[in-house]
Amino acid sequence: MTARRRNRGGGVKGEHPILTILPARRTVRVSPGTTLAEAVAQAGIFFSQDCGGRGTCGKCRLRLLSGAVTPTTEIEEKHRQQGHLQGQEVLACQRQPLDRVTVYVENDPTDRPSALTGKDIDPGDGQAPAPHVLKQFQVLAPPSLADQTPDLERLLHALDADLTATPGVIATLPELLRKNEFNVTAVIFRDRLVAVEGGDTSGEAYGIALDIGTTTVAGYLADLRTGALLDSMAAMNRQARIGADVMTRVAHTLEDPEGLARLQGDVVASVNGMIDALLAQNGIDPSRLYLLTAAGNTVMSHLLLGVPSRALAQAPFVPAFRSRLVVPTRRLCLRAPAYARLLVMPNIAGYVGSDITAAILATDMDRPRGIRLLIDLGTNGEIVLAQGLRRVTCSTAAGPAFEGAGIRQGMRAEAGAISAVRIGDDVRLSVVGGAAPRGICGSGLVDAVAELVRIGIIDQSGRLRRAESCPASVPRALLPRLRTGGGGNAFWLTEGETEVILHQQDVRALQLAKGAIRAGIEILLDRWGLTAADLEEVLLAGVFGSRLKAESLLAIGLLPPLAPEKIRPVGNAAGLGAWLSLISMPQWERAAVIAAGTEHVELSGHPAFQSRFVEALDFPPTG
Amino acid sequence: MTARRRNRGGGVKGEHPILTILPARRTVRVSPGTTLAEAVAQAGIFFSQDCGGRGTCGKCRLRLLSGAVTPTTEIEEKHRQQGHLQGQEVLACQRQPLDRVTVYVENDPTDRPSALTGKDIDPGDGQAPAPHVLKQFQVLAPPSLADQTPDLERLLHALDADLTATPGVIATLPELLRKNEFNVTAVIFRDRLVAVEGGDTSGEAYGIALDIGTTTVAGYLADLRTGALLDSMAAMNRQARIGADVMTRVAHTLEDPEGLARLQGDVVASVNGMIDALLAQNGIDPSRLYLLTAAGNTVMSHLLLGVPSRALAQAPFVPAFRSRLVVPTRRLCLRAPAYARLLVMPNIAGYVGSDITAAILATDMDRPRGIRLLIDLGTNGEIVLAQGLRRVTCSTAAGPAFEGAGIRQGMRAEAGAISAVRIGDDVRLSVVGGAAPRGICGSGLVDAVAELVRIGIIDQSGRLRRAESCPASVPRALLPRLRTGGGGNAFWLTEGETEVILHQQDVRALQLAKGAIRAGIEILLDRWGLTAADLEEVLLAGVFGSRLKAESLLAIGLLPPLAPEKIRPVGNAAGLGAWLSLISMPQWERAAVIAAGTEHVELSGHPAFQSRFVEALDFPPTG
Repeated sequence: MTARRRNRGGGVKGEHPILTILPARRTVRVSPGTTLAEAVAQAGIFFSQDCGGRGTCGKCRLRLLSGAVTPTTEIEEKHRQQGHLQGQEVLACQRQPLDRVTVYVENDPTDRPSALTGKDIDPGDGQAPAPHVLKQFQVLAPPSLADQTPDLERLLHALDADLTATPGVIATLPELLRKNEFNVTAVIFRDRLVAVEGGDTSGEAYGIALDIGTTTVAGYLADLRTGALLDSMAAMNRQARIGADVMTRVAHTLEDPEGLARLQGDVVASVNGMIDALLAQNGIDPSRLYLLTAAGNTVMSHLLLGVPSRALAQAPFVPAFRSRLVVPTRRLCLRAPAYARLLVMPNIAGYVGSDITAAILATDMDRPRGIRLLIDLGTNGEIVLAQGLRRVTCSTAAGPAFEGAGIRQGMRAEAGAISAVRIGDDVRLSVVGGAAPRGICGSGLVDAVAELVRIGIIDQSGRLRRAESCPASVPRALLPRLRTGGGGNAFWLTEGETEVILHQQDVRALQLAKGAIRAGIEILLDRWGLTAADLEEVLLAGVFGSRLKAESLLAIGLLPPLAPEKIRPVGNAAGLGAWLSLISMPQWERAAVIAAGTEHVELSGHPAFQSRFVEALDFPPTG
Repeated sequence: MTARRRNRGGGVKGEHPILTILPARRTVRVSPGTTLAEAVAQAGIFFSQDCGGRGTCGKCRLRLLSGAVTPTTEIEEKHRQQGHLQGQEVLACQRQPLDRVTVYVENDPTDRPSALTGKDIDPGDGQAPAPHVLKQFQVLAPPSLADQTPDLERLLHALDADLTATPGVIATLPELLRKNEFNVTAVIFRDRLVAVEGGDTSGEAYGIALDIGTTTVAGYLADLRTGALLDSMAAMNRQARIGADVMTRVAHTLEDPEGLARLQGDVVASVNGMIDALLAQNGIDPSRLYLLTAAGNTVMSHLLLGVPSRALAQAPFVPAFRSRLVVPTRRLCLRAPAYARLLVMPNIAGYVGSDITAAILATDMDRPRGIRLLIDLGTNGEIVLAQGLRRVTCSTAAGPAFEGAGIRQGMRAEAGAISAVRIGDDVRLSVVGGAAPRGICGSGLVDAVAELVRIGIIDQSGRLRRAESCPASVPRALLPRLRTGGGGNAFWLTEGETEVILHQQDVRALQLAKGAIRAGIEILLDRWGLTAADLEEVLLAGVFGSRLKAESLLAIGLLPPLAPEKIRPVGNAAGLGAWLSLISMPQWERAAVIAAGTEHVELSGHPAFQSRFVEALDFPPTG
């Protein structure tokens, strides 16, 4: 018992509590004092935590199945009294595991990156496949007094290549060659001999493409020889514990001298968890991971590399760098071999990052395919307009409404989230996981508002009418759902045990978000003297884009008037672009051309932005 | 007094004793338990220690001027009784400083690398000067909403260069640019932006060329803009504590798992001491050191880079690498900024290292200047024969006789060493530092033997005659100097307080050494069907070569018969070559061509070597 001690909560506390998470069946050993929320994140499981672990948002519910945890807190009790927590549910940020603890975390299966197989995409881009990393098996002639060719030169002659090598690789050669009877496999990245392996390992070469989002990090495991996509997964960006959006994170680097290092450590930890899991799940030796690519918004690129982003946070919003980089993974403490390299994809501007570069790549927005619009909806909405070979882009600060944040009962698209709404005589809801509804996610919000506008319960200005002011066309059965709540009018989407209510302020938040996007679209169209009628295709990138109904986006006026069939969700195009850059040198080169050749329009201070924005706040006339 | 404690010697011992060394006026603070010998070495002062600090060679004498040291030891007392230590003299390996200690270490001023100014050498080699490192001052336009060019791209556009940058450099940019009102100096090495400095620092760019010898490390400080040689110094290679020659050191890496790391640490410590001293003495900010070059024998190259040399130590003597390398200094823990690079010059073969490449470069042995021979005398003698544009080289294991090691009273060319001998009716000696003679160095040995052969006291077979067997031509006054001593005949070079005696075994050691060199010369000449008469010039490289009399080398038969005026000492040609490679890209490229284009003859197992060697042992007939 000497190694065990009593903790203040009274439980018997092992030195390192162990947490098992269901249904993901992942187990993690954590340091004493770690909260359940931190432990779940360490296991690479995505988890909402909008308030940064202060307990105010109440979103980090999970079910405690077994094991001892620290006692409840005042904050948790308040949520329980308000009916936000039931049965086994606890707030993960308020509790610490004490020994072996098992919890159940409901995860939206759609959080797993959409299949996005890109099966109809040719990574070679019409050219011969050209992987970044080559492996060549060689049977070398052993040396003799008549042939004293040094080890390195012996190998390089056999490879018939003019390669450089580091002292680290050279130091391994004498023993490796002699232990393997001069049968070895060379690993070549560009003009460098990065590693030499005993025997014939030419069949094993792997890479991981990363899409580093503000909320979620997605990883794609690829076979570098064939380009095949072997597996993919998503996990929370652990930076989310500091704050939900990029601005909070940049602010953290300014307020706290350790902030930048902390945020860099967080995203690196998220990526490391993903590397470990992807390799382990696929039975891949970690020494065979040679290459990673990363796409992400510009702030994420800065934080990943530990580059200060102060100048990016304030006018004139200047990033420290934009260009692509090749970084030794060891520099970032990535859990990859010392010889592995990270290819950081090129950003376009301060708020149009390499995720957009990658999305343009994946969707051929750099090819002459008519007049097309690409929209990535999120806290920042990035918009790209393409015509012929030219492209123009902008970014608008839409706020977190699409992510379900800033919405009274907003949540991510996890089990219990209302994700689609249809209103006729009654209200019909789709709920993630088929569970009882307990909140609303972005797509549900857009749907709900679109339907209420169509029905006439929300007027063009965005006002939720009182029951008595509704036009006659509104079905009478809906009127009891209109009441006063949360300091204004509100619409009860569900009644009963857990009410889910759409408040007036939720509608306002959505108006601001969609208004910003729409204003951006209009300004890009204006720039080239185009109108919405000229658009031949509108691509919606990102997981969120896949969940949205085209009709609802048109109904709320986020998109200008156009035929719904022109709207096409493209899934995680950023991840796909990162994967293409990972498996193909020509695609990596193409990404550089895309980033350098995309014109950027700064909306901050743009003379037309404010009026376009105000015009775009109203909802379009119905019918 | 709490921070002080009594040590076993009884002295009051400060936590970190401080040693001041005169006449060099260098002060060093050392860890408790450090010997005087180690402390002197840490101060970068050259110091003989053939026995590796065991106290048997008795060569690490120094004068203790003041301060408390540990008491005398049995070994030291024995040396004192034998008259090897007088007055204030102690053996530095047997004593430890206890507080503030001042010692006097006599240093041969010729140990300082010879001026070797290379003033008549054109580093640009007829081309425009092309330094490796460029510095460019830029006044950048500050950003605005109309010009959001990122910091990095802003600088690169101004430089009008396509350069890569590391996250480390990029991370410094935002603050650096804004603190310096966008006035900065870029540091460029090849296609990389290695650093950015505030304001105009374009006038400050420095580099150090290193000649890493088995015994001595020499450093040359250069202004990288002008190529000017600003300063130079030499220090002991601290590996010498492990053993005097390369074979002992390779053996150490095989016997001890920590051996390679220890030897690498030793040479790095020697180089670091030199970097610190050269920069401090010349008032140079360490952040302005951007480049180093290193030349050395192949074993030294391996040890410096931490590359195992086992395969180099046994037949078929295969080095791990031969080619030139560019290494981040940080990888080797060199005391240089993280962005500084070390250019490791290319080796030619396992026992013909980059010091020979550098010497060929410095002496234009790659240019058509007739039939020439270059010899670097040392424990290994390297020989290069050049004719037209072709070169052939070999290495012979001469043993340490030329360094004064393995000779009964051998010593380095320090104060008290007999460095030249002239014998007529009497013996006339030159002694280093004009002090009383106390031993003999390599040049003295060659001279003494040459004179004794000429006079007839040593016969052609190398036998020291007994007084009664000397021919009549031997001056009678010399005969009393011929006596029996040390297990054979011997010749007393000096009488009196400290006798310096040449023993029969010393003559044998010299015969083996010169025989090996001569056999190598003959085999190279044979290869091209040449004879000594064809040689138009013979260059003697190295400090030792500068001290030797041409006539003596001919008299002992180390060199084949040729006119003495064809023999020319060229000083530290290796250091000069490293300096040329440091200050000029074309010279660095030329070194690669030299190393790749020099044919190597392996003498081990060479069919003619043994007979050539045996033939070369005898001394040439006199007269």
